[in-house]
Amino acid sequence: MAATSRADIRKCTDADILGDMQDPLRPTDTYLDGAMLERHAALACELIRRYWESLETRQVSSEIKPGDVYRSMPDTAPDIGLGGASFEESLRIIERDFLPALTHWQSPRFFAFFPANISTPAVIGELLSAGIGVQGMLWATSPACTEVEMRVTDWLASMIGLPESFHSTSRHGGGVIQGTASEAILAMLHAARHRARKRIGTPKSHLTSYASTQAHSSFIKAAMISGFASHPEDFEHVRLVENDDRHAMSAARLRELMLADAAQGRIPCFVCATLGTTSSGASDELESIADACDECARLTGVRPWIHVDAAWLGSAFILPEMRASLRGVERVDSFAFNPHKWMLVNFDCDCLFVQDRESLTDSMSVTPEYLRNAATESGDVTDYRDWHVPLGRRFRALKLWLVIRHFGVRGLQEYIRRHIEFACEFEALVRADPRFEVPCERSASLVCFALKQGDAASKSLIERVNTRRNIMLTQTVLPATTKSAKKFVLRMAVGAALTRREDVLRAWDEIRTCADEIQPNC
Amino acid sequence: MAATSRADIRKCTDADILGDMQDPLRPTDTYLDGAMLERHAALACELIRRYWESLETRQVSSEIKPGDVYRSMPDTAPDIGLGGASFEESLRIIERDFLPALTHWQSPRFFAFFPANISTPAVIGELLSAGIGVQGMLWATSPACTEVEMRVTDWLASMIGLPESFHSTSRHGGGVIQGTASEAILAMLHAARHRARKRIGTPKSHLTSYASTQAHSSFIKAAMISGFASHPEDFEHVRLVENDDRHAMSAARLRELMLADAAQGRIPCFVCATLGTTSSGASDELESIADACDECARLTGVRPWIHVDAAWLGSAFILPEMRASLRGVERVDSFAFNPHKWMLVNFDCDCLFVQDRESLTDSMSVTPEYLRNAATESGDVTDYRDWHVPLGRRFRALKLWLVIRHFGVRGLQEYIRRHIEFACEFEALVRADPRFEVPCERSASLVCFALKQGDAASKSLIERVNTRRNIMLTQTVLPATTKSAKKFVLRMAVGAALTRREDVLRAWDEIRTCADEIQPNC
Repeated sequence: MAATSRADIRKCTDADILGDMQDPLRPTDTYLDGAMLERHAALACELIRRYWESLETRQVSSEIKPGDVYRSMPDTAPDIGLGGASFEESLRIIERDFLPALTHWQSPRFFAFFPANISTPAVIGELLSAGIGVQGMLWATSPACTEVEMRVTDWLASMIGLPESFHSTSRHGGGVIQGTASEAILAMLHAARHRARKRIGTPKSHLTSYASTQAHSSFIKAAMISGFASHPEDFEHVRLVENDDRHAMSAARLRELMLADAAQGRIPCFVCATLGTTSSGASDELESIADACDECARLTGVRPWIHVDAAWLGSAFILPEMRASLRGVERVDSFAFNPHKWMLVNFDCDCLFVQDRESLTDSMSVTPEYLRNAATESGDVTDYRDWHVPLGRRFRALKLWLVIRHFGVRGLQEYIRRHIEFACEFEALVRADPRFEVPCERSASLVCFALKQGDAASKSLIERVNTRRNIMLTQTVLPATTKSAKKFVLRMAVGAALTRREDVLRAWDEIRTCADEIQPNC
Repeated sequence: MAATSRADIRKCTDADILGDMQDPLRPTDTYLDGAMLERHAALACELIRRYWESLETRQVSSEIKPGDVYRSMPDTAPDIGLGGASFEESLRIIERDFLPALTHWQSPRFFAFFPANISTPAVIGELLSAGIGVQGMLWATSPACTEVEMRVTDWLASMIGLPESFHSTSRHGGGVIQGTASEAILAMLHAARHRARKRIGTPKSHLTSYASTQAHSSFIKAAMISGFASHPEDFEHVRLVENDDRHAMSAARLRELMLADAAQGRIPCFVCATLGTTSSGASDELESIADACDECARLTGVRPWIHVDAAWLGSAFILPEMRASLRGVERVDSFAFNPHKWMLVNFDCDCLFVQDRESLTDSMSVTPEYLRNAATESGDVTDYRDWHVPLGRRFRALKLWLVIRHFGVRGLQEYIRRHIEFACEFEALVRADPRFEVPCERSASLVCFALKQGDAASKSLIERVNTRRNIMLTQTVLPATTKSAKKFVLRMAVGAALTRREDVLRAWDEIRTCADEIQPNC
């Protein structure tokens, strides 16, 4: 181990370096030690296996108090490395201190938020990607990293029924893996602004963007980061379009807003449509939105960029019978969904497909001298760094490729179908209990439900359910419609890889039991 | 395997579901199969081990032609899953078709760009994170994921000599893991704008941001995405400050530009300083920049946010003797560096430290009903989703924790020191050859050098070197100074985990041989 008192190497001169150099004390094998990797991976997989097996009996969330984990760790980093021999101790700390302080997203009884699926081949894919350790920012910095991603996103585009114009083999389209749906929305909003400006040299102060009140909060976050809004309530350049009775965007209202903006000299440049909102799973009508955009374009000369955020529901489109809401998708500019939510690929893996890749890459590209290379200059290759915010990127296509090969299209279809069936059954159970209501249509594997007694009772119910920690749900507030006031509801989102029918039935028992406790007289 | 002709499940009614349901044909064990994980991880680790061992003899980059890998893969995804039995075939495809089509960032003779280090404990950390599969977007969605990250970033802040005010235990500071330095710059530029606007209600059209001409291209990219610039040459709200003779930002020129902007009613709100530029490793002077910002603040009432991008060089600050350029860091608002570049943590892991976390979280926070929870509302917890663009986040702190425990502070110091020593020796060798020059100071492990014969000769040299593929270098153009014209140079960036002294000596032999070939008469 080198002493910290070693001479200040910044002052080294030619003479003393050459005299002083020797092979390092620590062999480089220590850094990439294949034998240790095999031993430690085996131990790590044993831990993961125990963890997976324990999920059946663990409470879904933790009773840990803020600061407990932080305080359990030493104040300072170890000065002397603990080395490979300490690895079993590291695993003990993980198992003893960290695992009990998690919310168990892979629990068979996790029905909160949306699922964040993992699977055996996906975990192996992440391991391989980490072990190979390449950077795919440019084609030239790892050709296979780029081309496997192009191929696998083309596969996916076909699997979910997107037209050929979204494939990398088309004249202007292609797919790319982004980290999250949030990043995809930001990239698309930026590309939309860029295209609009380029078309008619519009000053940015006149550009406006649109999404429904039910769009994910990442739309507003993207609007703030990109400079369209100063804060969440800044509606100078952002319009939140009212919902219709299905809690989807009212295309009629979108049309009105866009035409009114256009009449005032504003240029609508971006519409974020949602297929499967986070609250209730509602889907906006792409055809009507595209019609409104076409009409707007005739007034302004700029066709608004339509981005489809199908973060969660997109995986369901591998079922042909689920594609009704895709009608009109050939008229949108971009489409993103997260295999890391509901297609057995672990986070992060958002797949974005565009029909106009030039507008995207043109909006992002900055090429300093140190990134120049012959392949890029030939124009024959895809450089994914220009498709998103980050420069560096890892080999995420590997996990997607392994998952698709392992399960096949039919295996993934079956996986999704089962969850939808479970949600069907759950919905039927809720509807059969006179205390409960299902105030909006089930969407795929998402069921929103409430106690008829009202919001206060529903709030008590979810609090009780989640405090018992046998299952986990989250809540939302459904917006008002012409037919109903806004309503607090519980969300039952089926989709964890380990969830079986019995877990869904148990969830319903748990919910009923809690309802019994808070409503003893019903 | 379910047939695709199964009844359309969207039409299921309460009656037929309840009658029809049965336990799934495919047991859920298939999705999270611990025994298969162990078997496949062992095979995957054997592949990784073989790959690591092969790096000694592989050419650093690939001769593959654009499209070759894409065409080697089937046109469509497999309809029927190949299952676990196909895994060995998947590994064969990786080994036969993908690995030879990579640029080998982990090669001991990779001296291009900056390093992208991996290490055994980091790969294991990525495996564990993938296998545990939690989402750390909120404290409540996995407390340990957040608190381990807080602790480990606090460790790191101490390790690289940042003051206590950047620790999570301070009143207003804290650290967070971001994906990349690009994302950190974007987040900081956005937070800076937000803070400036909030302070004096400034319209955004008057805000300006600054970096040196030598700042990373991600500054311009962030300026475009955030709306400060329409394209890379749009200098309405962005100023690229000229460099001084060391290729660092001229603080005098920064001061002039900011004061001139202030005099015209503009509000300078953001300065991106660089410690260790990508071209030549130059470091901007934080004290002088902070002085200029203080002076500007006296005129405008808004102190510009100073962000330090130390993406590559930051790791070197674990050496006390390397901290001269950190002087004044207590006066900056944020500081980011990438352990994924040069601290043995595999990509992605950028660590960002701020002194004013409220401005950051306030600029990002949008809280829809479905993300509300008691812990957030108590104000007692850190919700990292408000610290960056993405919402979801994986348990990246695990790999950082395992690396620090394994190597310890001293082991990491030694790692960095060795690379600096190698670069010292390389520099001496270059200087000793009369055909070559070292036109700017070596920075840590980065040496820029050129043929005295001029740019054309240096270009021929790097082309020849990289075509032989025994080592890999990248190039840059050093900007003009008062003493020298701009110059095309080769960059020798030492830092791969497997690099030994003999690899550096071999690199020099290779470069000399190529120089002999292109300059036979010298």
